[in-house]
Amino acid sequence: MPVLKNISALYTCPTDGLQADVGEIKDAALVWADGHIIWAGPESELPKSYRGYLTFDARGRMVIPGLIDCHTHLAFGGWRAAEFEMRSLGRSYLDIAKAGGGILSSVSATRGAEPEKLFEKSRTLISDIIKLGVTTIEAKTGYGLDLDTELSVLRVYRQLNNLGLIDIVSTYLGAHTIPPEYSQDRRKYIRAIINTIIPMVQIEGSARFIDIFVEDSAFTADEARRILTAGIESGMRAKIHADQLSACGGAELAAEVGAVSADHLEKITDAGIQRLAKTGVVAVSLPLASFYLKQPPLPARKLINSGVPVAVATDFNPGSAPSWHLPLAMTMACTMQSMSPAEVLKGATVYAARAISVDDTVGSLLPGRQADFAIIDAPDVNHWLYHFRPNACVATYKKGRALYDVTVTVPVYPWY
Amino acid sequence: MPVLKNISALYTCPTDGLQADVGEIKDAALVWADGHIIWAGPESELPKSYRGYLTFDARGRMVIPGLIDCHTHLAFGGWRAAEFEMRSLGRSYLDIAKAGGGILSSVSATRGAEPEKLFEKSRTLISDIIKLGVTTIEAKTGYGLDLDTELSVLRVYRQLNNLGLIDIVSTYLGAHTIPPEYSQDRRKYIRAIINTIIPMVQIEGSARFIDIFVEDSAFTADEARRILTAGIESGMRAKIHADQLSACGGAELAAEVGAVSADHLEKITDAGIQRLAKTGVVAVSLPLASFYLKQPPLPARKLINSGVPVAVATDFNPGSAPSWHLPLAMTMACTMQSMSPAEVLKGATVYAARAISVDDTVGSLLPGRQADFAIIDAPDVNHWLYHFRPNACVATYKKGRALYDVTVTVPVYPWY
Repeated sequence: MPVLKNISALYTCPTDGLQADVGEIKDAALVWADGHIIWAGPESELPKSYRGYLTFDARGRMVIPGLIDCHTHLAFGGWRAAEFEMRSLGRSYLDIAKAGGGILSSVSATRGAEPEKLFEKSRTLISDIIKLGVTTIEAKTGYGLDLDTELSVLRVYRQLNNLGLIDIVSTYLGAHTIPPEYSQDRRKYIRAIINTIIPMVQIEGSARFIDIFVEDSAFTADEARRILTAGIESGMRAKIHADQLSACGGAELAAEVGAVSADHLEKITDAGIQRLAKTGVVAVSLPLASFYLKQPPLPARKLINSGVPVAVATDFNPGSAPSWHLPLAMTMACTMQSMSPAEVLKGATVYAARAISVDDTVGSLLPGRQADFAIIDAPDVNHWLYHFRPNACVATYKKGRALYDVTVTVPVYPWY
Repeated sequence: MPVLKNISALYTCPTDGLQADVGEIKDAALVWADGHIIWAGPESELPKSYRGYLTFDARGRMVIPGLIDCHTHLAFGGWRAAEFEMRSLGRSYLDIAKAGGGILSSVSATRGAEPEKLFEKSRTLISDIIKLGVTTIEAKTGYGLDLDTELSVLRVYRQLNNLGLIDIVSTYLGAHTIPPEYSQDRRKYIRAIINTIIPMVQIEGSARFIDIFVEDSAFTADEARRILTAGIESGMRAKIHADQLSACGGAELAAEVGAVSADHLEKITDAGIQRLAKTGVVAVSLPLASFYLKQPPLPARKLINSGVPVAVATDFNPGSAPSWHLPLAMTMACTMQSMSPAEVLKGATVYAARAISVDDTVGSLLPGRQADFAIIDAPDVNHWLYHFRPNACVATYKKGRALYDVTVTVPVYPWY
């Protein structure tokens, strides 16, 4: 039963309370056993019964629940750096598509990639992601679109999950865009999703969520309703890429079908906010996508003030958000989305867990929860997200086991 | 005479040409000896006379001139994380000042810090900065303001430079703000700068540049003219914090006094741009400050199209830009300032060198220049600045010596 002492600030991130309620405990200690949290509180109140156990020294650093990146497109073939250059110089989406770029270029590269290469590539990224304090990520398909590639990517995610490092929660996003072979018959592709691919995904049992891109350039709300309903009937829960480039009724649809989350929401309307608030859908903000696309971010303050929980994730993908750096997204959520560091921390832990239906086991450091936590080389959450460094995380624990730990070998930062 | 081979793309960053002319050479090799570049070109054209020498393998990565951060406020006491939280929630500058924050709180903390602690703190930061591929930084005073503390900080910079790691180029910024003890008599402080502090800085020979904050809340253009003139007469070259929060004639003054750079420029006017273009002043863009203060950035495209060289730096300081992550500032320059990755690379190498008058020795990988370079784990500059990672740099060489090198121990990133 290890005891972690000398914690400058411990954030338990309770499931209830306001967005800013992160359960900060100064000068804290944390006790875990058999992969679960036993006790969390002020070190001065540590029960005597734990005092004889092996003690780890946090060296005056802060401790948070393991971060949860609840929106990524982890596995894809190729990269799209040339588009970044074109966008930086103001070239339009149409110019980029004409030059052979855009999402379909990732579809082509992903279909052409061997599963072993996708697995190896994703595994490398995960090795780096772990060092940031991340212990759970959601990962979507959507760059295969056809049956074989979508199932293949879902198998890659299952293998990654089976490595026993961090948890990978899979989402089937066949309705990411219309694949080129169906460009003249979108209804045929929608039928293929509903009649062929969803049943096969169900047979393999490989996706917990079904997601869809509701947008003028992708799928209408009516099409989305049919696809999501089919997914829900097959046992998946719904998520929606909603109101990113225009207000297309995505948030309203999320409320209607009982989606677990509505993601993006840069263009959400006041009516959409009210619908989310009434139905308890988590709003997932993706500040890196707003940043890379030079878009105004979602109205986080309005959402929070209306009682909508706002999660923060990376949207990691090769086009609009080519970074898996969740702490950078968190700092951006403070500056671009006008969220306080505490609100952002809750958004990348317990609310992110809620956005992928795992908040009963992770995202909080309450007794009984999994001992997924990170040690951050900063005195408190304000300091951490204020002073952006390449990586301030010095230890990542999953179910009480160290996936990464340089607490002892890296000196404490000069926080004076 | 070492030879670095197997470079996917080498960027020589010549002093002449347009902002986008970075001298990219694909499949390149680089030769240096006695701390200086001997040869740079396509590996297929490597002269036979170099073929017997010790060969380093870049493993298909890219090579750039060592990065130059030409605008930092490196040494200060304390941090100001609480202000970040207040700003994230929309609190005003006045609110922050009332709560005891703002620049004067850093002045108080810096005056109260022992020089040894400032040295130790800065040295720690430099150890991390080196790993990003940075080989030269400019460092300003301006959190002491009084004679003793300003000289003390300049001595800290000299000691840091004497470590022989990266070059520290010092700037005296006594005219950062009016210190509290002169709040009722600003003219008296200006006289102290001109009659006492500048002569002492000259005697110690410890600053190459004199800088000033021209702004409604700081110093007028007339006051700045007097101070800069005194500094120039004492052998320093001028730099100006210009047109950051309002158009106060800072760019025009920079042109008038022959400043080496005008920095910030978020609010520069078209007339100011024309004056800079005519006089060859380098515009130093500071995207992290724009990002943290939620300000529209400087009009980089207008500046570039007018023929003004645009450098990119961090502005690292404890208030408005609390990050020394120059590659992050570079990615931000692409998205926020609409600069291409190549333009940004030139801005953080040879133009940054020009902004601190060291472009005759560093900032380019031309024969005869210092062998200051970095190996970046990316195939080309577009890829590097597109896919933001905690740190993509795998080696930093200064005068041909490795300050940091994990080229061999860190596997090549999955760029497929």
